[in-house]
Amino acid sequence: MSEDRVTAAVLVIGDEILSGRTRDINSGYIAHYLAQIGIETREMRVVPDEEEEIVAAVNALRTRYDYVFSTGGIGPTHDDITADGVAKAFGVALAEDPRAIALLLERIKPEDLNEARRRMARIPEGAELVANPISKAPGFWIGNVIVMAGVPSIMQAMLDDVAPKLVKGAKVLSEILDTHGLPEGAYADGLGELAKSMPEVSIGSYPKLSEGRFMNQIVLRARDAGILGAAVEKAKAMLAEVSARHRM
Amino acid sequence: MSEDRVTAAVLVIGDEILSGRTRDINSGYIAHYLAQIGIETREMRVVPDEEEEIVAAVNALRTRYDYVFSTGGIGPTHDDITADGVAKAFGVALAEDPRAIALLLERIKPEDLNEARRRMARIPEGAELVANPISKAPGFWIGNVIVMAGVPSIMQAMLDDVAPKLVKGAKVLSEILDTHGLPEGAYADGLGELAKSMPEVSIGSYPKLSEGRFMNQIVLRARDAGILGAAVEKAKAMLAEVSARHRM
Repeated sequence: MSEDRVTAAVLVIGDEILSGRTRDINSGYIAHYLAQIGIETREMRVVPDEEEEIVAAVNALRTRYDYVFSTGGIGPTHDDITADGVAKAFGVALAEDPRAIALLLERIKPEDLNEARRRMARIPEGAELVANPISKAPGFWIGNVIVMAGVPSIMQAMLDDVAPKLVKGAKVLSEILDTHGLPEGAYADGLGELAKSMPEVSIGSYPKLSEGRFMNQIVLRARDAGILGAAVEKAKAMLAEVSARHRM
Repeated sequence: MSEDRVTAAVLVIGDEILSGRTRDINSGYIAHYLAQIGIETREMRVVPDEEEEIVAAVNALRTRYDYVFSTGGIGPTHDDITADGVAKAFGVALAEDPRAIALLLERIKPEDLNEARRRMARIPEGAELVANPISKAPGFWIGNVIVMAGVPSIMQAMLDDVAPKLVKGAKVLSEILDTHGLPEGAYADGLGELAKSMPEVSIGSYPKLSEGRFMNQIVLRARDAGILGAAVEKAKAMLAEVSARHRM
């Protein structure tokens, strides 16, 4: 794992996202959170609650990225099969974990610990638990895969639990420039030349329609503050020049 | 393409989503839209503005699903490289399309049609254009891949343009049951048995935390209204029974 650049994928598991019924807000939250601590999200996937799909996605992503953060599918109902899929992806057993049972018993009375609730204590062999301060049922961390709940507030608390233990890379710094109503087509040539001349800087142009008018932003991103600052100055000069020309 | 079941993947192309800067609202919109017209979204991916990533994702998804709907990366700036990636994935040339140039000239004065803006007229060989009633620059449709803009209002208009031409499957019908505060662990065993006894019905349980209390919903989905209705009745009876027990 290079400490210069640490990469991640987000894996959202859930039919409810794919059917369009529930809007996924977890992946955006995780990507933003990871960016703040120096981990770069390189891919996101949403797959259904089907074991073979989960296995395939976990294996595709864990071999490509430093970390995989999954959300969803770790509750007590029959459609919660993330632990099964992850255990199978790693080729390890899935068994009831006494540590997890103890956590569940902090919230659930012993006589209410039925078969379904015990499902939440099934943890792949060799995994560490991820704390759930809200409803106790833990997530887990196996290899480079971190398995979290789908309920946003619980997922967020779990991310706070694992964050201190993650290897971080150099944070990507960013600057946003407003183009003050200049159309993309007016500055695209200049921006492309700047991007080509400074390959260490990732430059994006993001159009937004507001009341029928494009309001665009340019985002410059780099790990080195000096290089980023130089790029920002060049971009500003380019925009000023285009703007003067555009208003002639 | 089976007309019983038509599947799709959504492919979102854009560094701004992966950095957490911009929240992707397109994939949820597309999934919900497709579900309404009888197309089942089976996977979503977000990849960066990098040609090899786009090629790999397009090829992985177009061979697995009936349709792929992509959003983002078809503007005039250097980071808009979706057309390049899609052309490469299909192994076809990418050239300026006179039909697309004509569309651009409906909005852009000939003297303003610079090199950057002409980029928006580059269409993979053999593709059909997708109309953009808002800002004219078209999307395109090649094979089973439909390439749309990233700006939500434009993407939505493009989806309206292609929708009548898509092959549709039988619509998945759904019913939502409120569990009136029953915890998942209380009904999970009964729900699992129901799911097992009616494999034609896809049953999910979705917890939501509201003011520290779980408010759960059960969603039942099937293509046959009679089967769905029978499952709903069984689920209601099961919940009533659990509820009576739970309140004792």
